[in-house]
Amino acid sequence: MKFSREIELRGHIVDSGILAKVMDLVAEYNGDFDTEEFSLGRQKTDPSYAKMKIGAETEEQLSQLISELRRVGALVIGEEEVSVATVTRAKVAPEGFYSTTNHPTHIHFNNTWIPVENMKMDALIVVDKKHMTAKCLVQGKLMPGDTVVVGEEGVRVDFPERPREMGVFEFMGGDVSSERPSLTMIRRVAAEIIQMKKNGKKVALVGGPAIIHSGASDAVAAMVREGYIDLLFAGNALAVHDLEHNIFGTSLGMNLKSGELVTGGHRHHLYTINKIMEAGSIYAAVQSGLVTRGIMYECIKNDTPFVLAGSIRDDGPLPDVIQNTIQAQDEMRKYIVDPDLGMMLMVATLLHSIAVGNLLPSHVKTICVDINPASVTKLMDRGTSQAIGMVSDAGIFLPSLLEALHELEKEE
Amino acid sequence: MKFSREIELRGHIVDSGILAKVMDLVAEYNGDFDTEEFSLGRQKTDPSYAKMKIGAETEEQLSQLISELRRVGALVIGEEEVSVATVTRAKVAPEGFYSTTNHPTHIHFNNTWIPVENMKMDALIVVDKKHMTAKCLVQGKLMPGDTVVVGEEGVRVDFPERPREMGVFEFMGGDVSSERPSLTMIRRVAAEIIQMKKNGKKVALVGGPAIIHSGASDAVAAMVREGYIDLLFAGNALAVHDLEHNIFGTSLGMNLKSGELVTGGHRHHLYTINKIMEAGSIYAAVQSGLVTRGIMYECIKNDTPFVLAGSIRDDGPLPDVIQNTIQAQDEMRKYIVDPDLGMMLMVATLLHSIAVGNLLPSHVKTICVDINPASVTKLMDRGTSQAIGMVSDAGIFLPSLLEALHELEKEE
Amino acid sequence: MKFSREIELRGHIVDSGILAKVMDLVAEYNGDFDTEEFSLGRQKTDPSYAKMKIGAETEEQLSQLISELRRVGALVIGEEEVSVATVTRAKVAPEGFYSTTNHPTHIHFNNTWIPVENMKMDALIVVDKKHMTAKCLVQGKLMPGDTVVVGEEGVRVDFPERPREMGVFEFMGGDVSSERPSLTMIRRVAAEIIQMKKNGKKVALVGGPAIIHSGASDAVAAMVREGYIDLLFAGNALAVHDLEHNIFGTSLGMNLKSGELVTGGHRHHLYTINKIMEAGSIYAAVQSGLVTRGIMYECIKNDTPFVLAGSIRDDGPLPDVIQNTIQAQDEMRKYIVDPDLGMMLMVATLLHSIAVGNLLPSHVKTICVDINPASVTKLMDRGTSQAIGMVSDAGIFLPSLLEALHELEKEE
Amino acid sequence: MKFSREIELRGHIVDSGILAKVMDLVAEYNGDFDTEEFSLGRQKTDPSYAKMKIGAETEEQLSQLISELRRVGALVIGEEEVSVATVTRAKVAPEGFYSTTNHPTHIHFNNTWIPVENMKMDALIVVDKKHMTAKCLVQGKLMPGDTVVVGEEGVRVDFPERPREMGVFEFMGGDVSSERPSLTMIRRVAAEIIQMKKNGKKVALVGGPAIIHSGASDAVAAMVREGYIDLLFAGNALAVHDLEHNIFGTSLGMNLKSGELVTGGHRHHLYTINKIMEAGSIYAAVQSGLVTRGIMYECIKNDTPFVLAGSIRDDGPLPDVIQNTIQAQDEMRKYIVDPDLGMMLMVATLLHSIAVGNLLPSHVKTICVDINPASVTKLMDRGTSQAIGMVSDAGIFLPSLLEALHELEKEE
Repeated sequence: MKFSREIELRGHIVDSGILAKVMDLVAEYNGDFDTEEFSLGRQKTDPSYAKMKIGAETEEQLSQLISELRRVGALVIGEEEVSVATVTRAKVAPEGFYSTTNHPTHIHFNNTWIPVENMKMDALIVVDKKHMTAKCLVQGKLMPGDTVVVGEEGVRVDFPERPREMGVFEFMGGDVSSERPSLTMIRRVAAEIIQMKKNGKKVALVGGPAIIHSGASDAVAAMVREGYIDLLFAGNALAVHDLEHNIFGTSLGMNLKSGELVTGGHRHHLYTINKIMEAGSIYAAVQSGLVTRGIMYECIKNDTPFVLAGSIRDDGPLPDVIQNTIQAQDEMRKYIVDPDLGMMLMVATLLHSIAVGNLLPSHVKTICVDINPASVTKLMDRGTSQAIGMVSDAGIFLPSLLEALHELEKEE
Repeated sequence: MKFSREIELRGHIVDSGILAKVMDLVAEYNGDFDTEEFSLGRQKTDPSYAKMKIGAETEEQLSQLISELRRVGALVIGEEEVSVATVTRAKVAPEGFYSTTNHPTHIHFNNTWIPVENMKMDALIVVDKKHMTAKCLVQGKLMPGDTVVVGEEGVRVDFPERPREMGVFEFMGGDVSSERPSLTMIRRVAAEIIQMKKNGKKVALVGGPAIIHSGASDAVAAMVREGYIDLLFAGNALAVHDLEHNIFGTSLGMNLKSGELVTGGHRHHLYTINKIMEAGSIYAAVQSGLVTRGIMYECIKNDTPFVLAGSIRDDGPLPDVIQNTIQAQDEMRKYIVDPDLGMMLMVATLLHSIAVGNLLPSHVKTICVDINPASVTKLMDRGTSQAIGMVSDAGIFLPSLLEALHELEKEE
Repeated sequence: MKFSREIELRGHIVDSGILAKVMDLVAEYNGDFDTEEFSLGRQKTDPSYAKMKIGAETEEQLSQLISELRRVGALVIGEEEVSVATVTRAKVAPEGFYSTTNHPTHIHFNNTWIPVENMKMDALIVVDKKHMTAKCLVQGKLMPGDTVVVGEEGVRVDFPERPREMGVFEFMGGDVSSERPSLTMIRRVAAEIIQMKKNGKKVALVGGPAIIHSGASDAVAAMVREGYIDLLFAGNALAVHDLEHNIFGTSLGMNLKSGELVTGGHRHHLYTINKIMEAGSIYAAVQSGLVTRGIMYECIKNDTPFVLAGSIRDDGPLPDVIQNTIQAQDEMRKYIVDPDLGMMLMVATLLHSIAVGNLLPSHVKTICVDINPASVTKLMDRGTSQAIGMVSDAGIFLPSLLEALHELEKEE
Repeated sequence: MKFSREIELRGHIVDSGILAKVMDLVAEYNGDFDTEEFSLGRQKTDPSYAKMKIGAETEEQLSQLISELRRVGALVIGEEEVSVATVTRAKVAPEGFYSTTNHPTHIHFNNTWIPVENMKMDALIVVDKKHMTAKCLVQGKLMPGDTVVVGEEGVRVDFPERPREMGVFEFMGGDVSSERPSLTMIRRVAAEIIQMKKNGKKVALVGGPAIIHSGASDAVAAMVREGYIDLLFAGNALAVHDLEHNIFGTSLGMNLKSGELVTGGHRHHLYTINKIMEAGSIYAAVQSGLVTRGIMYECIKNDTPFVLAGSIRDDGPLPDVIQNTIQAQDEMRKYIVDPDLGMMLMVATLLHSIAVGNLLPSHVKTICVDINPASVTKLMDRGTSQAIGMVSDAGIFLPSLLEALHELEKEE
């Protein structure tokens, strides 16, 4: 091999599969390696260490390979500083800009390793030279004058090691299975939520309208009221159906007590939107006594923040819905950068879950529940290392989760 | 139109859609009709009556059309007797034999309308001339000398009218929906089961192994013990996993209490089969004290009959499993011809549910529950007029159903 | 029954199932009916006629029942004029406003039956008293001073009769089946498209990004170029992946020729967006020679209009994407009101398909193709009488459709 | 740690993930390890080597851990001989018998490492002491006097290393994705089939009846005739529908040319079975000229063996169907032990595919195609390291595969 560079790997690189990934990448890129040093942690708590010379036939091939290795946590020996370039037109990034992962990242700048804030996938790194800080920014937010990291040199990614203690997130290992005992899994999820709350962490729900159709709105309302859910991300439909349920007792015209469509019920949907329009906002509708229970009611009453993001299939929409999709992302991001956000429940919505998944740093634990196995798989594939998926029915899952929370609280 | 015959239709032929079906068929076969008499029931409880002349361009076309009309309940005026032919070789039917629907059927024989017993789809009608009786028989059971109905002449099908009172089976109308309130639906199913039991009817369960994996075995065991389930149809896997759960606490090696795979658990499956082999049968294993709880245990203890039908993916199989598929059908049919059988719960098994569906007369109410919407749709398409489908998770559905049964019993 | 009104039904009311629906509704509302006149079309081409007295115990019950009957096409004898009310605040409708179906509708106003323009579901009817016209408007577009229809009185819906000639849309009858011969179905769809074009009708495609991932972009590009597709509705992702495919040969970093992920390919997605940002628009990128083939290229080159509607999961988005969801609906509506729009292909996108379905009048034929049976069912349930669904793989479906179009053209 | 044993690992243990698995297992069992020797292959073609001391707190814990490590390829230093026990009753295995994986396995017996023949999952190892051979046997085949391996000591499993050359089986890496370019994937599968044939390997098809319904029977018939398929595993339904297609032009009464149900077509299914019953067998029906084309015809004409395995949902069944499920397994196994069997196509059948998957050694490459993503995932989870899954529509997949085979043959 004509061209080569040395890299170092540290940590639980063997049992987290990082070393295996490195070798895969070398193979894939037709590169080569020579292991110059290797110490396998003798005991399972010890970190391992490897120093390898990575080779390739061409400079370009080597550079591509090295750039992939960086993304799984390799530190390149003799690492130079990051290169930066200046944005000249709004929303247009300099050629060759670095695009981020959702893992903790540092850049080597002015001889210092600076942590990058607000990590999310598929963003750029903007450096504040004056304050020696750096943060993630999406392309659409770039402004002229912004200093952006270019190329892969000088960027270090802390690829997540798989922890040894076996919580529910670890033992499921990113697995989606309909062959798990459902109520047991629910109980374990409940235990994680209780643990989160004890540690002062926040739990958010991203939910779809099937939560209401399937009859789980009372359970979610209770979870908001009792403080298990600290934040709600949803769309127009969830809010409208929830309000319709409160005002007319139906969801899209179906009586949720009997499961039957009611007389003229098809109109309730539009009539609900109209009533909220008249009131001015969901808040006003609660204050005026028009809305007296349900998920949105509990959010208002308990000061639980919610973001209702618009989509092109919305009727109305409600005055609270953010019609501009990029503004809606911004509004969600405000809550997601909160370092206390510890868990994200994604229930019965692919659109909103993917949108939120795009914004999440990899340390937030996620639970994806959908009746469609393909949706669950899709959500699990988005790079979160601490995610569990359940193919289940929201209408029974959420009431069972509430029941499990209550039981576990009692046991303590 | 050169060729024609007169037919009569009676009953709730308009609101059950039978008249619409007749017209569809006439249109499809490029036939024609002339309505000679029609009286629409003036009030909604009154039956309607129609007498129509059905025409076609050729004799053959007319005969095909008439034969289709018979299947939706048309009575052909001046109806001749059924034609019969004699079987000369075992399992070989005479040319042009009549193939059955699963609806109540009569044949016009020796000037009498004889009811056909043991109705099921896709069978033949065998006539006992001496006793003036008739019954359904599958082709593979034909013996030389059997007298078999040939052609469509003289056969009358009582196409099911849709009843006006709205039970859960009626209001769902053969609908599969994941947009119903799950717990409400479960409560309505529970109410139907309780009604069945009050009327002295039997409820059967056809279940797949996911019942055990998903952690619902205790709920099913309780339903057997408490007399909600009178009959169990399943395969080798459900029984093995249930027994493994009792003997080792695992299902395919997974601890159902923790949801985790246990040490060496992959062997439990085969070890369970071996233990039952050694005992000689499930009955013997219960008697000897090896098996002390679970679904199979409750079946043995409560004299609840079960049929375990073999499939090519079986390990073992258990000594109780009927390896021959046709014998297994025969054994299931024994229970299905019981006139007291009123309801069939089909949960998490496509293979066994379709097999049972093939054997069922159309008056048995069926409930199909599966996590896969395509499976539910497939089961609902098999001609049962009183079927409801739910796309749900067996592991939460069954415990919730048991809870609903208990609550409803208490309320009474 | 204390309260009653007379209704009339005309047309193929029996074989289209309309009479059966009427009786269902009467039963459901615990009403009653008395058939005062009934003439069943003697031959299959003759219309039928029914005059019925509909009764109920209370005035309110009767009014609800009558309002439902109107929606399936009943004409109320002695029908009064529509009531109207005036909008006083933007986006707030008068109490009791009429909400529309997607079927052709007339209102009885100033002694005239006026047709309602721009029919779509779940909208209001706004009357222009001066010009004696009426049109559908969504709630969010209401302006002070608008005159809106209130109540159900004086509104007539032409419920679609099922035509007798059996095209592919009729014989499928709203059916979703994975048990149809796929290539045969594709050939029939191709024949309908060719027929549409001969009749001067337009065909639109609503497509999801899986069209690109699954390798069908060349087929769609050809369909645009050859004039089979006259209009494209999509989101940011389809356009970005298509452009990435053209610029980098990949889709989300996967080489579509080899099916393998390429070196650094994860960046192509963002780099593509950046290049279009730099160019200013897709049009500019085509003009400048940056983009030289693909779906978007063909749209630009052939003046085929497209609407790219934003969603909250967008990266970027491209400058051509309409970020505001309500503006995006408006833009789509512009094309949908075109009376020449005859067919809508909905492929591999639930979000955009539902959004478009909400805007479509019921006479546009729709074809829904998705790998997920639940998505196909959901789309088929939205009230379009002329819809067919196929559970299939876009990556083979679209190339096969193009092949079938070419073969059929050759045969002529 | 009080108890310990030394193990050795050899080969591409890092990049195949074997070393990572070892560490996972140690962690899971709360054991410990001390790496006494480790040499990472310096170049990527070099094997690595590790010698580790594995420790645990109790003898039992250690023994469990060691037994798991053996299953991923660990060689225990100072390995004793296998223990054996003698079967005393038919079908009853000795306590603690060894249950197999589907990977190549050796046993240490009489100081020799003997390879185990006919490897499959979940079977026992029976030793022929006289000839010093060993083979897999399922429990139900055990006879008194058989010598069976007991415990884990002395058993060595060659856990599959992931090969470096990137064929389609390697690059897909056990992945199921609907986000691959479909026609590209099909072309790669076609290339693998052509390569198989060149190497004198056999390709088998396990297929479900949807192959016929979806219109792919001509493509499969051609693949049999042209020698791409050497062996067919199916059930009664595939054969009946194929024969019905030939005799009546329909499949379950649907005309596959038009996609429409034909007059009286529901009878074709039973009439077909009756005709074959009369002929005596499919072979006789082909010889007599009753059957003149189709999949079964080509199998008979080209001496392509087929196994039709019965299931409880069979109508008839055809005389060629093996009604006893265990006999059917035996018959399939006869062909599966053929060392030339190189590839298994599993299309549109979960039941038969799982049954065959249970019998397959891990070296046979498998391709799973189903419209249901859950079915594909389930098949991929069964331990075959060289499997690829496609969520696709059999009715277009198979004709496209045939087309790709023809194109590739032409290119050569």
